[in-house]
Parts: sequence; C-alpha cells; structure tokens
Amino acid sequence: MQELFNAVTVSKARALMSRHLSLPVRAEKMRIPSALGHCLLDDVTAAIDVPGFDRATVDGFAVRAGDTFGASEGMPAYLEVAGEVLMGQAPDVSLEPGRAWRIATGGMLPTGADAVVMVEHTEELDERTIVVTRPVAPGENVIRKGEDIEAGQLVLSAGHRLRPQDLGILAAVGITEVEVRRPLKVGIVSTGDEIVSPEQTPGAGQVRDINSYTLYGAVLSNGGEPILYGIVPDRFDLLQKKLAQAWKENDMVLLSGGSSVGVRDVADRVIQSLGRPGVLFHGLSIKPGKPTVGAVIEGKPVFGLPGHPVSTLVVFELLVAPLVRLGRYPEEDFLEFPLRARITRNIRSAAGREDYIRVKLVLRQQELWAEPVLGKSGLISNLVKADGLARISAEKEGVEAGETVEVKLL
Amino acid sequence: MQELFNAVTVSKARALMSRHLSLPVRAEKMRIPSALGHCLLDDVTAAIDVPGFDRATVDGFAVRAGDTFGASEGMPAYLEVAGEVLMGQAPDVSLEPGRAWRIATGGMLPTGADAVVMVEHTEELDERTIVVTRPVAPGENVIRKGEDIEAGQLVLSAGHRLRPQDLGILAAVGITEVEVRRPLKVGIVSTGDEIVSPEQTPGAGQVRDINSYTLYGAVLSNGGEPILYGIVPDRFDLLQKKLAQAWKENDMVLLSGGSSVGVRDVADRVIQSLGRPGVLFHGLSIKPGKPTVGAVIEGKPVFGLPGHPVSTLVVFELLVAPLVRLGRYPEEDFLEFPLRARITRNIRSAAGREDYIRVKLVLRQQELWAEPVLGKSGLISNLVKADGLARISAEKEGVEAGETVEVKLL
Repeated sequence: MQELFNAVTVSKARALMSRHLSLPVRAEKMRIPSALGHCLLDDVTAAIDVPGFDRATVDGFAVRAGDTFGASEGMPAYLEVAGEVLMGQAPDVSLEPGRAWRIATGGMLPTGADAVVMVEHTEELDERTIVVTRPVAPGENVIRKGEDIEAGQLVLSAGHRLRPQDLGILAAVGITEVEVRRPLKVGIVSTGDEIVSPEQTPGAGQVRDINSYTLYGAVLSNGGEPILYGIVPDRFDLLQKKLAQAWKENDMVLLSGGSSVGVRDVADRVIQSLGRPGVLFHGLSIKPGKPTVGAVIEGKPVFGLPGHPVSTLVVFELLVAPLVRLGRYPEEDFLEFPLRARITRNIRSAAGREDYIRVKLVLRQQELWAEPVLGKSGLISNLVKADGLARISAEKEGVEAGETVEVKLL
Repeated sequence: MQELFNAVTVSKARALMSRHLSLPVRAEKMRIPSALGHCLLDDVTAAIDVPGFDRATVDGFAVRAGDTFGASEGMPAYLEVAGEVLMGQAPDVSLEPGRAWRIATGGMLPTGADAVVMVEHTEELDERTIVVTRPVAPGENVIRKGEDIEAGQLVLSAGHRLRPQDLGILAAVGITEVEVRRPLKVGIVSTGDEIVSPEQTPGAGQVRDINSYTLYGAVLSNGGEPILYGIVPDRFDLLQKKLAQAWKENDMVLLSGGSSVGVRDVADRVIQSLGRPGVLFHGLSIKPGKPTVGAVIEGKPVFGLPGHPVSTLVVFELLVAPLVRLGRYPEEDFLEFPLRARITRNIRSAAGREDYIRVKLVLRQQELWAEPVLGKSGLISNLVKADGLARISAEKEGVEAGETVEVKLL
C-alpha cells in the first residue's frame, strides 16, 4: 500500500507537469478551409466592418422609421415606392422622406433609410404606393454596418482551435490563410514480454498489443500526430534505447504497459535515466489508472501509462489529451466532463480517490441516465461497450442510484 | 405567413427524406489504425478468445482458491512456492494442492490454479514458503480465458464508427485491416448576387461567402468529403447547371444562400428541375432555420439551406450531419443534444416551433448553466461566441430562467 501514499490527484499531477513543460510551437501556414481543427498561432483581427453596409434581414421595404410611427391597420402610413434595391449593388440615390424602396433579404439600405418594413406588414395600393400597417423602430429588420464584426475587432484568439463556424468568420473578414500550430508529434511505445503485435498469433501466455492502437486513435482524434514505435521487451537497455529514440524524435512520449511491479520499476528507472527533471509523480489517486508515471524530460512530457486498456485510456483522457489538443492544461476544465446523467445503481468508491466508471447512456422519461458497464479494467470489451466515462469525485465515498454524475463521451 | 402552414418539424423532415434516400455504400479497405473515424461495412467477429488463457490482474501468487479458504491474520494458510510464471510464457507444470506460483500482472495461471492472491495479502516466511492472510474466491484477481472476448463473439457491428478503443479491440482480435464505408462526397454551392469569395474585397452592397467555409468544416468534421463549387448568381440557368454538376459528382448537395423570397423561389424551382421525387418539404418549423428546402433526387439528398450563417449551421446539425456521419438518420437521437444545462434567462418561443438558441456554457456552483448569446441569426460572430446550441422543444412557449435545456456542443 506504500504507493497510495505517493499517489497524487489529477490536478496535482497537472500542476507538477505544468511547472516543467515546454512544448514547442511550430508554425505552419494553412489555407482555410483546411485549417479546421488546428490551433491559431496568433490573434486574428478584422480589417473591415462586416457587413460593410446596413443590410436588410427580411424581404420588404426600406423606409425612414419615422414615416411609419403610429401606423396601424385602421390608420396606415402611405409611402411612395421610389425604387428597388438590387442585390449586391449600392442604391444610387438616397431615400427621401415619405418614400420606400423595395428590398430583399441581404440587400443594402439606401442612404436615409434606417429600417425595413416586412412585406407582410404592407399592402400595395398600386405600383407606386404601399400602405404600411405596422410601425418599425429605427434599426428594425436591419443588420447595421459593422454590427456583426467591427473593423479592428478581435475575431479569434491565439490558441483557439478552429471549428466550422470559425472558418466562416475568417472567410467573412477575408482571411484565407492563417498560421496554425503544427500538430504535436507523439511517440507511442508498448512494453511487456507477453505482448505481441496484432499481426502475430499469440502463443500460450501472450496477448496482442491493444494500447498502441487505442493510443494512436486517441492522439489522432485530439489533433496530434501519433508515431508507433512497436513493442519493446521489459529490459532496461532495450527500453532505454527505444524511449530515448522516441523522446528525441517527438514532442511527447507515451509508454504503455508494465502494470506489474517489476516492470514498473524498470519503466520508472528508464524514464528517470532520460534526463532532467525526470519523474515528477508515481501513482495517481484515481481508479482505474493508479500505476501511472508522469515525467518531464527537458520540457517534453513522458508518461508511463498503465498496461490495462481501460486504465490507459482513462489516464490519456485526463492527462495526455489536453496537452495534445492545446499544448497545455486548460484553466477552466468544466467542459472536460460536460454531461450530467443520473447513475442507475449504487457505486462504492474510496474517499480521497477519484473514480472513473465506464457508462452506457440511456434515456428514461426524458432524463439522461448512466448505466455502469461493470467489469475489470483489463477488459477492452468493456470500453467498447461504453459511451462515456463518469467521474466520482475524491470527496465522495461513492454515489447512490439516482445521483447525478459528470460524464465525458468516449 | 403562408409558409408556416407548409413548414414541417425536424422529425417529419427526416421521415420524408428517409423514405426516398438511397446513399451509396462504397467499400474501402483500410488498415488499422488509420481507419479511425470511418464506419465499418460489416460486422466484426472474434476468431479467438481474448485473453487466450487465465490471466493474473495483480502481482502475487497463483493458487488453488480452496487452499486459502478461512485464512486470516491470526490463522494464515501456509503454501509452498513451487515456481514462478514468466511473462509471455506458459507455466510448464501444473499447480499441485498446497502450492503457489509467483506471478506478475498479466501472467498466465498454471493449470490447476484458479485465483491469484495479491502480494499485499501474503508474507514470505522463507524462499519456499508464504503465508496467506486473506482468502481468495475462485476467479479472484484473474481474467479468465475468453472473459474479455469469446471466440465467435460479435465485436463491432456493421455501421459502427471507429473510436480509439475500437481500434484497440480490433488489434486484440488480430484484425489489422477492415472494410469501411468511404466518406460521402458532399458538394457545396453558394448562391446570391451579393456574395463574393473571401479573396475578393467586397464592393458596396456585397459580402463575402461565409457559408461555404462553415459547411466545408462541418462536413469534414462529420467524416464527409466536402467539395466546394463556389458562388453562383441567382439565375435559374446558371444555378441549374452548377447544381446538376454538383449532384452528378457527389452523394449529396448543399445549396446555401437565397433567404429572400425571390431567390428561394429560384432555388426551389432549380432543385425541383433536377429529377425525381424532387422537393419534399419547404420550410422547417424551427427558429432559426425556417427557410430550408429538403429534396431527394434519385436517392441523393439535396438541401437548400438558409442564407444566414447561424441558420445554415443549425439546419446542418439537425438534418445534414447525421446523413454525413451515418448515411441515415439514427433511430435513437437523444445523444444529439447530450448536455443538460440551466438557462440563465427567460427565452420566449412560439408553441409549435422548435427554437435553437446559441449559448455559452458556464459553471455556477458546480452546475452547468447556458447563457444565451443574443443577436440576429445573420451574425456569424454570434456563432463564434457560442459553445453550443440549446433546444427549446415545440411543445413549450419558452423557458424560464433556471429551467433545464438540452444542449449540443458546437
């Protein structure tokens, strides 16, 4: 039980790592829209107003709002139709009092006009005259010049990860090329004398490598560039050689496997031998995932992840994913476990330890419920059946059926 | 207001589309791990048991559980240490009663052993003898042969989209190549005489194309292959030519723009002219997103999306995203809006209409709250500020501050 004394919480582990981390920022120019999913290197500022003119948001008539004040069904306002706005063109003359211009959604208001009356609130008396049966306020049914984006305004911040709508706003301000941060390279090494590659047929006592592939997928789906280094036997010299190579060639190294004490010791000593400051914590006060080693070697994170597939993915989500995505741990982390669901059964948990339960999500009477997928953390099938991970915080000694838990989709 | 009568609900729109949809299934062989994010074409079945042997899940001693029954601190069981299991190897002799084999996590139990005693619950008297201070039940601290996956078992179902852990299970059963569904090709056309490309400086009355880029990103992040067809003027012949080309070259077509009545009519007639059965609905009973046209032309979906950037993305999420991801609308859709958050202010909504509100998510006293990002649906900046979309169902006439709403992250 000695290890439990050294085990640190996830937030402590993050703090320890953060103190020594120094992940490189490599710039790459990318055109939109291919920059999707990449992180901006610099703030993006708009050079122009969007829209560049007062723009109608409905079909109808551009008017001076004052000309419609007091208008009603019984006492409509009469306006002279003086012209029609053509899409994509500036009206050539300004709107005189008492007049209206026909305008379609997206059209540019003529000078003098300050609102648009919806066509539904008008009637055409003849080709030159409409009656307006409802007043409009100044600015009504109009997006004003610069109302969406003002020239000089910060549009997106440095570090922001580009979503579809962010590509849209870049297009809106005419930015078709951005500098983004290149994906971090993550070396993945598996260790264990019992591990064989998926191509091989396992002999007695052997199992195929699962973690390399789960981790590859997890790195990729967080925007990183995974590189597989294969399986290394549990020998100090071989492991050291492979890890040193992976460390040199990547921004981050994930060593998986070695849940037995002997192998863990080797992995530990190897990581420690790579450089300074070395191992920062042995053991996390979470379940599953306790036998985790966290190290930083000359600014690059190196993680010794547990051998069990479930534990490995849990620790990846908690400690590795944010680094791959952002190059750092976020300050606000409440969106890491954004779902709230009620648990379907009692789950016991030790106080002082965070528990992560694999759950299937189901809907019962319009409420989201989390159904624990029970089973040992060594089972990959367990993880495949799960929709998400539910967190039981360290302060609690478990949750009772019906209690709300925080869930992250897997 | 005539349109409102024709407007259909989202589920009605899905049903109408589904009746005529026939999206192609093109197979592609892919190696794991690069198959991440792709949908399996066929069921995957395990050819072997995983693990292929009874496997220790802790460090300790492989024993016959019966030999430890009744053991306690005061009355321990004495066992003779008869050997040590080497990782990745089959123990060569079986375990005799009264004996124990040293074993590490992941090791193979010798024949005769049915449980593992944790090293923490033993003491070594001498090199040949241990005392066991706690009994183990048969199967304790063991993953039995086939307990994770049984030979013949369905591992992943046809249509399943591969997540990181799914790559892991494929590796576990030795499947290194799978047939996946090729990404669906989605042609994107923008229309509007006022729209210019992002490379151009907009003149008076002109705005840059936003939707092509938002939609490109949205298609890509749902696993599709987007193809941009640029901007077409609002003329029947030009639009027909371009849409016919996009329809021919793709599995699905998205036409965006044309929120004004005149342009909508042209878009409508053009889509109708492409083939059978043609337009299935005009107008959705949602806000924003009402002016949407849904069509199927010889099995391929064609959508006329609203011109406003917010409306376009809302409709994309509701009607297009599932088709791009899965090639169909899912039966269970409760995970489409998986988050629950309390809304920070009253929002009015018309009964009979689903409302989609852009929200920022914030944490207040450990609870998730959704803060509406107010503003017109024509504003792209609105969408960039939002973390998600909150849904107000058609039955409700709005929500009051503090009420819980369903949210989808954007």
